[in-house]
Amino acid sequence: MKQTIITGSGSYIPATIKTNADFAASAFYSETGKLLDTPPEDVVQKFKQITGIEERRYADDQLNASDLGALAAKEAIANSGIDAEEIDLLIAAHNFGNVYKHTIQTDAVPSLASLIKHQLQIKNPNCVAYDVLFGCPGWLQGVIIAHAYFNAGMAKKALIIGTETLSRVIDVHDRDSMIFSDGAGATVLEYLDTGTSHQGILGCCAQTHAVDEVNYINMGCSYKPGSDERVRYIKMKGRKVYEYAMTHVPAAMKACLDESGISIHELKKVFIHQANEKMDDGIIKRLYHLYGINEVPENIMPMSIHWLGNSSVATVPTLYDLVQKGEAPPHQLEPGDVILFASVGAGMNINAVCYRY
Amino acid sequence: MKQTIITGSGSYIPATIKTNADFAASAFYSETGKLLDTPPEDVVQKFKQITGIEERRYADDQLNASDLGALAAKEAIANSGIDAEEIDLLIAAHNFGNVYKHTIQTDAVPSLASLIKHQLQIKNPNCVAYDVLFGCPGWLQGVIIAHAYFNAGMAKKALIIGTETLSRVIDVHDRDSMIFSDGAGATVLEYLDTGTSHQGILGCCAQTHAVDEVNYINMGCSYKPGSDERVRYIKMKGRKVYEYAMTHVPAAMKACLDESGISIHELKKVFIHQANEKMDDGIIKRLYHLYGINEVPENIMPMSIHWLGNSSVATVPTLYDLVQKGEAPPHQLEPGDVILFASVGAGMNINAVCYRY
Repeated sequence: MKQTIITGSGSYIPATIKTNADFAASAFYSETGKLLDTPPEDVVQKFKQITGIEERRYADDQLNASDLGALAAKEAIANSGIDAEEIDLLIAAHNFGNVYKHTIQTDAVPSLASLIKHQLQIKNPNCVAYDVLFGCPGWLQGVIIAHAYFNAGMAKKALIIGTETLSRVIDVHDRDSMIFSDGAGATVLEYLDTGTSHQGILGCCAQTHAVDEVNYINMGCSYKPGSDERVRYIKMKGRKVYEYAMTHVPAAMKACLDESGISIHELKKVFIHQANEKMDDGIIKRLYHLYGINEVPENIMPMSIHWLGNSSVATVPTLYDLVQKGEAPPHQLEPGDVILFASVGAGMNINAVCYRY
Repeated sequence: MKQTIITGSGSYIPATIKTNADFAASAFYSETGKLLDTPPEDVVQKFKQITGIEERRYADDQLNASDLGALAAKEAIANSGIDAEEIDLLIAAHNFGNVYKHTIQTDAVPSLASLIKHQLQIKNPNCVAYDVLFGCPGWLQGVIIAHAYFNAGMAKKALIIGTETLSRVIDVHDRDSMIFSDGAGATVLEYLDTGTSHQGILGCCAQTHAVDEVNYINMGCSYKPGSDERVRYIKMKGRKVYEYAMTHVPAAMKACLDESGISIHELKKVFIHQANEKMDDGIIKRLYHLYGINEVPENIMPMSIHWLGNSSVATVPTLYDLVQKGEAPPHQLEPGDVILFASVGAGMNINAVCYRY
């Protein structure tokens, strides 16, 4: 019986480190346009306490999201050992396309998937390449789409990339600008008969809440009064996002485990979107609480937010890549380990995939 | 046996008509920045001869692509008779997201699919909503993705929308600005057992050529010298696109028919992307020529380019909607008719779907 197996992963972590101290001279304004009178160093200190973020990465000026994606993709292809010409589905997940440095315009024509296919110099025309926009959960949604293609007999090998340069769409006068970072992660998936009946993707779920939640994360004008109203930046209603995630993400994770026939006790690792350390801690506690368990197992949830910030669609595949390659000790994966991917973001969207390594 | 059936369609055709005469006062520049000394009225006349376009539609200032998409979607849902809460997959295809009038920034956060779901007030969280970027063939690619979900048992009812406001990303100093227009089309697909074994989608194909072709359609600076280089517009290498389409589209259409087990003689209608009348005439001739047929059957290819221009992802679903409802005489569809959808665009991407009505 064929299963959807991750056969390779890669990531691109930009070299430029931006520390919290780099924001100490920022002029932050409130949502209502008032200059914050808290000393910036105190703002930054409080920010670290809440989010866990100490530093984040920014891409070099000449690199765009498609370049980052191609670098991660090359690594994933090499890691899988496949011939790139065998890929029949190439999906790039992002939200802002290529944003050339010193501009604010999204460029996704041609799609980032096409640009990445070009950089990889894949000739096979039957390697169909498109972009998927699903907020931060976009990369995991690409994995779910590949799983659908596999089960429908429409593809056998897929390359799923998440790439974003959020540093180019932040409002430097908004404290939330400290959350976001740049990066790319990529994964090769294959539809294989491994002889083991319960390997690969065991179950998946995806949700969109858009009645009240549609503008919890969106684009808006700078908080600095007098700014050009035609230019808009990523904006987040932090409290709303937090409450939304705490309510809906643990339930979706449990639904995914249940659908997969997996007991919470079998779970070895949870790869969750990195947006806020406190939020992720809260989500994992609530997940276990849904099973009547008050103690979360040690080392169940690898974290990268301290040094990578929130790189949107790049976060989960990058984290998986680091752990898979033993680059995030003490975390490691052993054959047979059951893991759970989960993400949440603009839309508002949630998804989860249960997977046996 | 279950089949992927189109059970409803809708479209939104903006009210504002922009005629060729409206461009007669334009200052057109060449790709190399030279002011064209041909009188604008002659440029416009030649443009009409080549493309067949006489007029095109622009959206009202206060409407964005997501608004157009929601209007088309409402019509498709009503036409299908389904309860919107039963939709489990909602895909919005576009390339430029929402571009607010008098800005040039793409806004796709949250995704247009989320915004449309919001406007439709669909509460069901399991109606998962995302955007797909695949150039002009994006709507048809959404149909193919829905078909994959259906066959994989991951969805039963899908709403696929194509929506675009190209009027807001054109360089008014580029003759190609006359090609593009605004609009939206939408389709409801259901996975149904109709009792007829050969109804619905019979076969599909999709391709991406990105080695030499990646920048045949892309974003670039205005042709007018001295323009702000940080602002970019849709740009097209017309000759390259034409040659590409003539080479690859007929072959892809034939491959789709062959895969579907359909003889060219069974084909009743071809719904092809409307980018250039001469190009579409050439494509259909070549398709028949591939079967050794020199005479293209009369009324095989409905055309809307004369009055709607090229509205990208909106073109094919709008054309289908008009014909399906008897609003594009003499064209009509009868149960059992075999039709072929085909599109080509930025990427470069091609797709085709063979369908029994």
